Amino acid sequence: MPKISQKGQRMPASPIRKLTPFADKAKLDGKKVYHLNIGQPDIETPEGMLNAIKTIDFKVWAYTPSEGTLSYRKKLTEYYNKLGYNITPENIIVTTGGSEAITIAMMSCLDDGDEVIIPEPFYANYNGFANQTDVVVKPILSYIDNGFALPPISEFEKLITPKTKAIIICNPNNPTGYLYSREELEALKELALKYDLYLFSDEAYREFCYDGRTFISPMHLDGLDENVIVMDTVSKRYSACGARLGCLITKNKAVIAAGLKFAQARLSPGMVEQIAGEAAVDTPDEYFTAVNTEYTKRRDTLVNALNKIDGVYCPNPGGAFYVVAKFPIDNADKFCQWMLESFSHENQTVMMAPATGFYSTPGAGTNEVRMAYVLNNDDLNKAMECLAEGLRTYPGRV
Amino acid sequence: MPKISQKGQRMPASPIRKLTPFADKAKLDGKKVYHLNIGQPDIETPEGMLNAIKTIDFKVWAYTPSEGTLSYRKKLTEYYNKLGYNITPENIIVTTGGSEAITIAMMSCLDDGDEVIIPEPFYANYNGFANQTDVVVKPILSYIDNGFALPPISEFEKLITPKTKAIIICNPNNPTGYLYSREELEALKELALKYDLYLFSDEAYREFCYDGRTFISPMHLDGLDENVIVMDTVSKRYSACGARLGCLITKNKAVIAAGLKFAQARLSPGMVEQIAGEAAVDTPDEYFTAVNTEYTKRRDTLVNALNKIDGVYCPNPGGAFYVVAKFPIDNADKFCQWMLESFSHENQTVMMAPATGFYSTPGAGTNEVRMAYVLNNDDLNKAMECLAEGLRTYPGRV
Repeated sequence: MPKISQKGQRMPASPIRKLTPFADKAKLDGKKVYHLNIGQPDIETPEGMLNAIKTIDFKVWAYTPSEGTLSYRKKLTEYYNKLGYNITPENIIVTTGGSEAITIAMMSCLDDGDEVIIPEPFYANYNGFANQTDVVVKPILSYIDNGFALPPISEFEKLITPKTKAIIICNPNNPTGYLYSREELEALKELALKYDLYLFSDEAYREFCYDGRTFISPMHLDGLDENVIVMDTVSKRYSACGARLGCLITKNKAVIAAGLKFAQARLSPGMVEQIAGEAAVDTPDEYFTAVNTEYTKRRDTLVNALNKIDGVYCPNPGGAFYVVAKFPIDNADKFCQWMLESFSHENQTVMMAPATGFYSTPGAGTNEVRMAYVLNNDDLNKAMECLAEGLRTYPGRV
Repeated sequence: MPKISQKGQRMPASPIRKLTPFADKAKLDGKKVYHLNIGQPDIETPEGMLNAIKTIDFKVWAYTPSEGTLSYRKKLTEYYNKLGYNITPENIIVTTGGSEAITIAMMSCLDDGDEVIIPEPFYANYNGFANQTDVVVKPILSYIDNGFALPPISEFEKLITPKTKAIIICNPNNPTGYLYSREELEALKELALKYDLYLFSDEAYREFCYDGRTFISPMHLDGLDENVIVMDTVSKRYSACGARLGCLITKNKAVIAAGLKFAQARLSPGMVEQIAGEAAVDTPDEYFTAVNTEYTKRRDTLVNALNKIDGVYCPNPGGAFYVVAKFPIDNADKFCQWMLESFSHENQTVMMAPATGFYSTPGAGTNEVRMAYVLNNDDLNKAMECLAEGLRTYPGRV
């Protein structure tokens, strides 16, 4: 029997999904499970986007240009230029989800063995994409005690080698919800210019900033045009994760030219999605206001409830819809599994993602857990009741 | 300014698209261009598939499981088991087009520097995917004079090294239209077993077999379960290229497990596409009969017209919707460009793909051209009139 590749053996399983077998078992036992483990929002997709699908009028479901239709890319520039990105359709490659924007950026900019610095905890699939493209991830610890702020630039500089080619930030951050400040981004800009690095900006959660905070992108900074690559997606913005529609944005023409060749190899992004994506840009502002009000309420519910539990600490993040909290436990993997397998409170339990999956430094985050506030307020309250009871009775409590 | 990757520099541009700038120019000059260069059929997508999109009734456009919905994978087994593949939903990973099935298969089975043997001319994007995944393509020449039949197994054996891990066949073939016989597949089976190789079977054109010929897949052969990986797509089968919906099929559990990890990293295939794909499986047989009758007629028109042109030879292929023909010319790249830029017949011209882009052996196919018969019969006749006139007056005629 032929062997699978070493790359296939090394490929990390998704940290979110490694608990799924236990979740299934929990379901079989008839327990109600509150799913705080995944980033699949329950928010409705904008009507205009869904109507665009229902009213398609083509006869041949055809390829589109590899870089995306001109019509969609034009419409996207409307959206981005309102944010002050000052781009043209030529700065955009439409991708199959944010995932493909990340892989195309990595393949276009980084060679085998090149290093990319990423503040951790970070979106776990960066590890998978790095393995796929033979890129080496150099993690740099951020800490729960200051809300996972950007680590000092001096710490980045300690990691820089001749192999360092890029920095990835996810802003607002998954899994921490941290929203980078203009000062932090300016500091990263100086670093990128000093060492001639790409700055990859994963902005999947751009629309989710709370308490009147303003989102700042590296695209807003002067003099960084050749270094910045934005990796974006409609998944969270319009609660359309299953659309698999994203884009890569850069003013660096050489990167667009290289990226286009990778895009051509896979022929085309989805045609129906681009039609829907075009309609999505006209989503009324009220939609976002309502969604952000809802998420703010949920975050407040969750963060308040968590901080009331004895021994728990949870920072109050400025964006996205995740929190990372510190629990009085021996081991987050064990605890999350125990909650599913061995615990129930009024025949209910909570599924969470152990934060260990978001760190690549061994041993980091062992007492931290990520929760996505993708449930309504009532369910969140019940889930927190369960969690408090679980933490009280967990045998590995410390 | 940070440099793009060597991988990005090496990445081949699509051979189909390299003429596009000239085509645009031709359009500007007001010439009518018959596009025989691309595999985008003009055939209508089945109504049932399009209706499935128009009648979606979900509120949240959500992720699906990374391997595809169970519902769609179950429906797919209906389709494949009617063909005699004898599979279960667990043998399938749903992918974003056939393109992703190819990259996931390569990443799961092949490591950096591993070699894959491919009879040439071959689907040009295999080169791009191999570059992406650091795999080395070892081409093996097939020849127009015997209709591009499988090269003798002894020729394959000459190429085998300890690095050889797989063979790729595309059946029916793009670009040649050649349909492999049971005997040829049996010979490949013996080779795969003898050297412990994967046999990747790209079956995008499975439905397009003519003159009563039967399609045989390596899936039909006994004793090859651990070696065969089918890479498939709905693109051509249902004229739904823009759906970006494909799948990888194998009975090799280790490959499914590795492939699933790559699939998890990119989260999910498209949700709407899977709904449409499920409806597509119920496309009535009459659709395929009508389509195949139409393609047979077009092929006959094209092949007959080509072989009537002085100095031209075109084999009569058993499947797909492509032909590769030999022209009395110095250089196919120059000729195809000349046809667009410098030639017109009654203010019309023909756009074709130079076959050189489908060979990786330097100098091979320089007098060959690929044509896709994706136009109606009248247009094909007019295109052949143009071509005959072009070949008569081309300055580089030999």
